[in-house]
Amino acid sequence: MTDQSPFIVPLSFRPIGFVRSPLISRKDAPRQSDEGAPEAWVEIDPAFADAMLGMQAGDDIILLTWLHESRREVLQVYPRGDRRNALTGVFATRSPDRPNPIGLHCVHLLEIKDGLRFRVAALEAIDGTPVIDIKPVLGDPGDR
Amino acid sequence: MTDQSPFIVPLSFRPIGFVRSPLISRKDAPRQSDEGAPEAWVEIDPAFADAMLGMQAGDDIILLTWLHESRREVLQVYPRGDRRNALTGVFATRSPDRPNPIGLHCVHLLEIKDGLRFRVAALEAIDGTPVIDIKPVLGDPGDR
Repeated sequence: MTDQSPFIVPLSFRPIGFVRSPLISRKDAPRQSDEGAPEAWVEIDPAFADAMLGMQAGDDIILLTWLHESRREVLQVYPRGDRRNALTGVFATRSPDRPNPIGLHCVHLLEIKDGLRFRVAALEAIDGTPVIDIKPVLGDPGDR
Repeated sequence: MTDQSPFIVPLSFRPIGFVRSPLISRKDAPRQSDEGAPEAWVEIDPAFADAMLGMQAGDDIILLTWLHESRREVLQVYPRGDRRNALTGVFATRSPDRPNPIGLHCVHLLEIKDGLRFRVAALEAIDGTPVIDIKPVLGDPGDR
């Protein structure tokens, strides 16, 4: 690989909001949302409030987050931290440790307040996690 | 908002690979994979080849991409570009135009070659789109 490689193209993005959760540390966080994850609030940057138009309580949504405490140099893990499992590439697991530590969370939108904050269940991301995108779960083609 | 706002925190990431597709321009691309998207190849940066260990033909996987031709300043759209639809915030749509233009694609892994390239169906991303993460579709808890 040389510096001319097409792979060496840093990309950048900006958080659109942050998670506010009773989960404070990564070691307390469940590995998946169906393993005891709590409700959490998401606070949206006012600069992006207009992008929430049409979001409604009752929707199922996908949150993409930046798992900011992850170890980006990790390429292989023992799934679920259990050495009885075979060593596996992170692209074949949901490990938070990965080159670009993007979290993918399907959650239920419970409540929107002030057009800037919303409450979801259930979310395994810890307090302070940057949110980088929100998408609807696709239903019928009219939702697209 | 001041410069001390917690929202002003640029994050950066690096492509882990690129899409190679017969779809060349955005205007030719279907809006969703079930609307006539073709097969495509994904070429992985050799630096991340170890992270593919355990990926297998036959898997359903999630590709996260960076929709590099998107307009990041767009906050509201007419869904599917049809002005008969109500103006909607991009977080309530799958519009590629959005503040952080991350594409989310559920695809079927058809073939892996040389431990560095794989073929998928069906993918609506255009040729040259950076891939930023790969995740398994979650099945039973043993997959996690």
